[in-house]
Amino acid sequence: MTITPPALSVFETVESEVRSYCRGWPAVFDRAQGARLTDEDGHSYLDFFAGAGSLNYGHNNPVLKRALLDYLERDGITHGLDMATTAKRAFLESFQNTILRPRDLPYKVMFPGPTGTNAVEAALKLARKVKGREAIVSFTNAFHGMSLGSLAVTGNAFKRAGAGIPLVHGTPMPFDNYFDGKVPDFLWFERLLEDQGSGLNKPAAVIVETIQGEGGINVARPEWLRALKALCERQDMLLIVDDIQMGCGRTGAFFSFEEAGITPDIVTLSKSISGYGLPMSLCLFNPELDVWSPGEHNGTFRGNNPAFVTATAALDTYWADGGMEKQTTARGEQVEQALLAICDENSAYGAHYRGRGLAWGLEFSDPQRATAVCARAFELGLLLETSGPQSEVVKLLPPLTITPDELDEGLRTLARAVRETA
Amino acid sequence: MTITPPALSVFETVESEVRSYCRGWPAVFDRAQGARLTDEDGHSYLDFFAGAGSLNYGHNNPVLKRALLDYLERDGITHGLDMATTAKRAFLESFQNTILRPRDLPYKVMFPGPTGTNAVEAALKLARKVKGREAIVSFTNAFHGMSLGSLAVTGNAFKRAGAGIPLVHGTPMPFDNYFDGKVPDFLWFERLLEDQGSGLNKPAAVIVETIQGEGGINVARPEWLRALKALCERQDMLLIVDDIQMGCGRTGAFFSFEEAGITPDIVTLSKSISGYGLPMSLCLFNPELDVWSPGEHNGTFRGNNPAFVTATAALDTYWADGGMEKQTTARGEQVEQALLAICDENSAYGAHYRGRGLAWGLEFSDPQRATAVCARAFELGLLLETSGPQSEVVKLLPPLTITPDELDEGLRTLARAVRETA
Amino acid sequence: MTITPPALSVFETVESEVRSYCRGWPAVFDRAQGARLTDEDGHSYLDFFAGAGSLNYGHNNPVLKRALLDYLERDGITHGLDMATTAKRAFLESFQNTILRPRDLPYKVMFPGPTGTNAVEAALKLARKVKGREAIVSFTNAFHGMSLGSLAVTGNAFKRAGAGIPLVHGTPMPFDNYFDGKVPDFLWFERLLEDQGSGLNKPAAVIVETIQGEGGINVARPEWLRALKALCERQDMLLIVDDIQMGCGRTGAFFSFEEAGITPDIVTLSKSISGYGLPMSLCLFNPELDVWSPGEHNGTFRGNNPAFVTATAALDTYWADGGMEKQTTARGEQVEQALLAICDENSAYGAHYRGRGLAWGLEFSDPQRATAVCARAFELGLLLETSGPQSEVVKLLPPLTITPDELDEGLRTLARAVRETA
Amino acid sequence: MTITPPALSVFETVESEVRSYCRGWPAVFDRAQGARLTDEDGHSYLDFFAGAGSLNYGHNNPVLKRALLDYLERDGITHGLDMATTAKRAFLESFQNTILRPRDLPYKVMFPGPTGTNAVEAALKLARKVKGREAIVSFTNAFHGMSLGSLAVTGNAFKRAGAGIPLVHGTPMPFDNYFDGKVPDFLWFERLLEDQGSGLNKPAAVIVETIQGEGGINVARPEWLRALKALCERQDMLLIVDDIQMGCGRTGAFFSFEEAGITPDIVTLSKSISGYGLPMSLCLFNPELDVWSPGEHNGTFRGNNPAFVTATAALDTYWADGGMEKQTTARGEQVEQALLAICDENSAYGAHYRGRGLAWGLEFSDPQRATAVCARAFELGLLLETSGPQSEVVKLLPPLTITPDELDEGLRTLARAVRETA
Repeated sequence: MTITPPALSVFETVESEVRSYCRGWPAVFDRAQGARLTDEDGHSYLDFFAGAGSLNYGHNNPVLKRALLDYLERDGITHGLDMATTAKRAFLESFQNTILRPRDLPYKVMFPGPTGTNAVEAALKLARKVKGREAIVSFTNAFHGMSLGSLAVTGNAFKRAGAGIPLVHGTPMPFDNYFDGKVPDFLWFERLLEDQGSGLNKPAAVIVETIQGEGGINVARPEWLRALKALCERQDMLLIVDDIQMGCGRTGAFFSFEEAGITPDIVTLSKSISGYGLPMSLCLFNPELDVWSPGEHNGTFRGNNPAFVTATAALDTYWADGGMEKQTTARGEQVEQALLAICDENSAYGAHYRGRGLAWGLEFSDPQRATAVCARAFELGLLLETSGPQSEVVKLLPPLTITPDELDEGLRTLARAVRETA
Repeated sequence: MTITPPALSVFETVESEVRSYCRGWPAVFDRAQGARLTDEDGHSYLDFFAGAGSLNYGHNNPVLKRALLDYLERDGITHGLDMATTAKRAFLESFQNTILRPRDLPYKVMFPGPTGTNAVEAALKLARKVKGREAIVSFTNAFHGMSLGSLAVTGNAFKRAGAGIPLVHGTPMPFDNYFDGKVPDFLWFERLLEDQGSGLNKPAAVIVETIQGEGGINVARPEWLRALKALCERQDMLLIVDDIQMGCGRTGAFFSFEEAGITPDIVTLSKSISGYGLPMSLCLFNPELDVWSPGEHNGTFRGNNPAFVTATAALDTYWADGGMEKQTTARGEQVEQALLAICDENSAYGAHYRGRGLAWGLEFSDPQRATAVCARAFELGLLLETSGPQSEVVKLLPPLTITPDELDEGLRTLARAVRETA
Repeated sequence: MTITPPALSVFETVESEVRSYCRGWPAVFDRAQGARLTDEDGHSYLDFFAGAGSLNYGHNNPVLKRALLDYLERDGITHGLDMATTAKRAFLESFQNTILRPRDLPYKVMFPGPTGTNAVEAALKLARKVKGREAIVSFTNAFHGMSLGSLAVTGNAFKRAGAGIPLVHGTPMPFDNYFDGKVPDFLWFERLLEDQGSGLNKPAAVIVETIQGEGGINVARPEWLRALKALCERQDMLLIVDDIQMGCGRTGAFFSFEEAGITPDIVTLSKSISGYGLPMSLCLFNPELDVWSPGEHNGTFRGNNPAFVTATAALDTYWADGGMEKQTTARGEQVEQALLAICDENSAYGAHYRGRGLAWGLEFSDPQRATAVCARAFELGLLLETSGPQSEVVKLLPPLTITPDELDEGLRTLARAVRETA
Repeated sequence: MTITPPALSVFETVESEVRSYCRGWPAVFDRAQGARLTDEDGHSYLDFFAGAGSLNYGHNNPVLKRALLDYLERDGITHGLDMATTAKRAFLESFQNTILRPRDLPYKVMFPGPTGTNAVEAALKLARKVKGREAIVSFTNAFHGMSLGSLAVTGNAFKRAGAGIPLVHGTPMPFDNYFDGKVPDFLWFERLLEDQGSGLNKPAAVIVETIQGEGGINVARPEWLRALKALCERQDMLLIVDDIQMGCGRTGAFFSFEEAGITPDIVTLSKSISGYGLPMSLCLFNPELDVWSPGEHNGTFRGNNPAFVTATAALDTYWADGGMEKQTTARGEQVEQALLAICDENSAYGAHYRGRGLAWGLEFSDPQRATAVCARAFELGLLLETSGPQSEVVKLLPPLTITPDELDEGLRTLARAVRETA
């Protein structure tokens, strides 16, 4: 495939220098369907990126699209703040019946604003209010968002520096496997909590991702998550699972923490919750934590009703039974086989992989390699993003609805890109 | 009109206690068109609220709706992060040609995430980075958002308390007319800046709304805004105008600061920029401030392409010439006449009004009265919100596209609600 | 008098660049008595500086000296942390009998460490603990100390910048006469407190100096202090009077706030409390505020017993009756006469003066003039310091025990220095 | 010995509840000489506490006393701020000749105010200014002082809570042996620094005690200190050794870090620097760090000249040769023998000891035991303090000048107190 340098002029002249994805993928995209995007020159790209996990059901999923078009055509409420609407009611009922009840989850549902960072900010506010403490513990290489509250519990030094003020009230602890098993889990964390002379401000809550998507596809083991939950209970801290990227079926089950068998105190959801790439997020919490006063947290776009419509359609279509979870597990095995083969072939380059469900990472000993692989993959028509503090990991996040053939095609392209960047 | 108590059960049982609008307006809304909403029981409501200023072109505006349906039907890119897309290009070109160039505004355009608070967080980060200082000056009764960075420059004590941590790095200054003209403008602020012993941390920037929508429809005079701009220049501070609620034509001109003839260093836009109630926001700034590194600020829903499509349609439809501005001015005069009559009739209750364009506030000496008026108006089929630190102001924000007859109907309902709550 | 350039070598080579007084007074001082110092070359200097207010009873006051020598000779406890000692008991009894009881002050006495900033840190901690709030209000041009807690409520921008971190939790308000009477007292402060939308974090306490010594000898009127006390009561804030420089008789009465007839909630004392220039400080507070747990605040040199001995001697000698206060008032009138004459003579230079008791300031319209006057005075054998944010004020702080003749001599030297720098 | 309950009334009625030592030692002390104090009833106490390390040369050391009396008698300057004085020059010359030059230490000397916390505050300010960063790393169970800057790097939760504001900008790391050797030294710390995604704000400096006196006599190994110094150099952080309690010969050599062969960037000294229990402290730093502007940090009692006089006498008397160091080592061995015997005798109670020079700790498995031992020792006429986060360690800090017989007497009393509290 040959790619004509696209006419990026208005992006270069008018859009801020802060733009990033468009630099690595120099194309002007026009339309998309399922696992494929098409640029304005008619080139087609297979998508192993899925809107950074926002398009678990693929681009413009036809079932969701039909529901959305019907809703818009009949002039359903578009913008509703936190007014009661029929679309919101349908979503709440579907979420309760399809997701919460079958899993025995007692959560109250908060619409904190339509982005992930809105949900994280709300979760942190609530934890601080409930516990009357300011400190939050996060983990190395965590990513929770770009507004000041979320950024203070995010690990990346470059993004933190963007704050322009010292970020405080957060303390990082080692994520699972940070020392490759050489140090007992939570040794440092628990000792700091128990030692009245440690200097650690007692945390209101711990915020964790079960798999760190931006941090390099670092996978927490179920036993580590269970031990973390137990530690939180022993030490009177709330456990917040940020399931923004790994929830909504990305790891197989609807919530990524189901495998570990834990019930977090607070859960944040966003990205694929609307199912159609429309901005929406949720903050879920145990009912006894619902100490909010009316309007204590608010936001203009909390009631993005078109997103409720596609969200409801996604839940009803994909989560009424266990089919989606089984399919994701099967697709994940297909990915794992391919990554195993790539790593075997590239063992000289220290290649190794990790992941779960349909979230996988491929790392090389040379941190530059991942960027080269993604660049070559783009030339070959495959969208792949890097992650990790040094962009040293190739991240695979295909839509959950990808067909086995498409998946196979993408994995072969990836293998070729790896080979051609050796 | 009689209203059957709506079946709110799932909202009450599953949704968080944080919900607020649905408490004052106990209806389940189903669909909307122009200046009217309809609830599931078929009751119709005239809208003087317009999604808190997010629906300047009315609900489900047919021109925007057509563009949106076409885009969705042809599987245009829905979710694009900051990838280049044809929809984003069309928006950037339209924004440049319709808005920036005719006003000689040199701004770069940043997509900071789809909500207003994302835009404010980005603006504050940028100002701090450029100036290398942490402090920001805001104004009494300012409202800038609910994430920690924005909340620290927001005035409302109840919302600030929700943070759960002490909010720092912000200092409030008196907004225009805070002392009813008895103290010279900026006397305190400038003295603090000039006095090396004042104890004020030198600010990176000043953030201001030209009309404080949440703060009580407090209107800054053009000369006050000009003096503020001059003060910022003298004292090497950036001026950020938060035009999230008052921009997009709400006050007449596209930007609310045009009347004052100033060019802020940074501008935030959101709410009505998409025109259809879809989440979208912009951060605009002078090109020499565009010191962002790629990806230094990011966010999942920056590229809400359906919003770009409706935004482009709105700009092309309403801002190609000066018609919208003239119409808003005319409608504003119609509102002012009606408010004048209400205040004359209610002079015994200390009623007075203020506003500009189609943003108006009606205040009574008894702070409880505004809530009573809005409650009665709801019963009479009119949506009206209160604002101000004690909810003491009835806020009028009808769609800009409202017809003179609808406007007249609503104003008569308002007058009746005032009368019936005396 | 001619002055040989002193051999400063070890100061220049070994002592840090942070040193300051020794730069303006390039002499190596050797001994002192009463109101006079003598340098190693035998030059004598009259002292209108008094250790920045630490030597109200003159250098090496013979009564205090005798008590100190006796105590040291008999091997009295020198260093006692907060152990009970006979010297501490004598001090507490004397302080209670001589100072507290006659003034009907119910204070508990805390020894927070021997420096002023220790006392301010303790006062702020206590206020925050009692009220459960973080914010403190201070005043323009306040000076409270150099450790981080005290520095955050200090006005001077140069000293604040030395912190190396953003100083937070403090908000400055205008000191008395900041706007020359053009703005009603506390207009801004009270409005911020009453307006729930003002953005001011509700303060735990207000900290104030009755005369700002470092800030330029800014004198608060008694009615302003009374209004401040009343405001604190209305708004549930504690009033802290920092009497470190202006207490111990500097303004006439033992406490500088006596003239205003107010009883602050917390008072800090230091500088002249030991009477001999020995490090000592006190934090006094209403007994219902004594919620400290044992050891919650501590410090190695809280029990500087030699200072207790000289402090007791000073109280017993000078404060058993009202003689000292009357004498200070008389000496103050002598100073005022002289300053009036100087200002009359220099009215063309915009000279004016202000002060109370034996704390006076002389200011010229040219801010450089004060430094020139002090430099010339030094050459003429008179020690005088500048104060104010631009060092624009000549500060007169002679020992309270200075004789009328010495005072006259110094005032004549000052008049000459003013004349010779015109 | 029988002890009459002392008349504590004025302490109980007038002094604040914050007092602590006087609660454990209910006596009113009157005079002291060498290693012995006498209360007002004539009871004598042997001192294994030495003013928390402020009386290394014993109470009212006769050589220092003579120098002090002579100075006071001849009316030497008592209070000098940072004016040049003959007493300060003598001290600086002695400190340079006796301490700095023989150790090849190039330090500049700053007088930051007379208490330890003043010195720590100055050290932190300087480090932040030099590096342009806010964050400081401290260690578990560190103690650095009670003013806000020092408290933020202190570990004790009870003392931290006293701040009344969240303490920020500090992060604790594990002190040597925190995990009993099971985790490699600095594994966590260095990994956080190297990982750009760790979330640790890059520190300006690390502050450490070589032996944590308040933290429980935790002794850092020389190799650990060397590795820390090397880590600081690799990672561009300044190393601050807080030698306030362990300096001035407490561990044998004048500086406690000499044994490790490192040269910290900044050193704080206080407590025994004056030698006589008089308030004095120093901040020492490499000359290239001396970027202070004149007066950027100041304080009223920086020039406590009587302390300079005793300090000079102490240096000249005890540090002109290596005799003091050898003697301390010998006395330390005497202590170690006795503690070994006590632990052998009490092995059933999990007794163990640790220390170096004349700083020793004795810990039992039952944390209450230490308090009981100290209480019984007091009854037996021996002053002993506890330390550690739970007061679980008996701390031995006898004067360095104690005689072998006195030391033996105290150690036998300690053994008896241990025995009698079993």
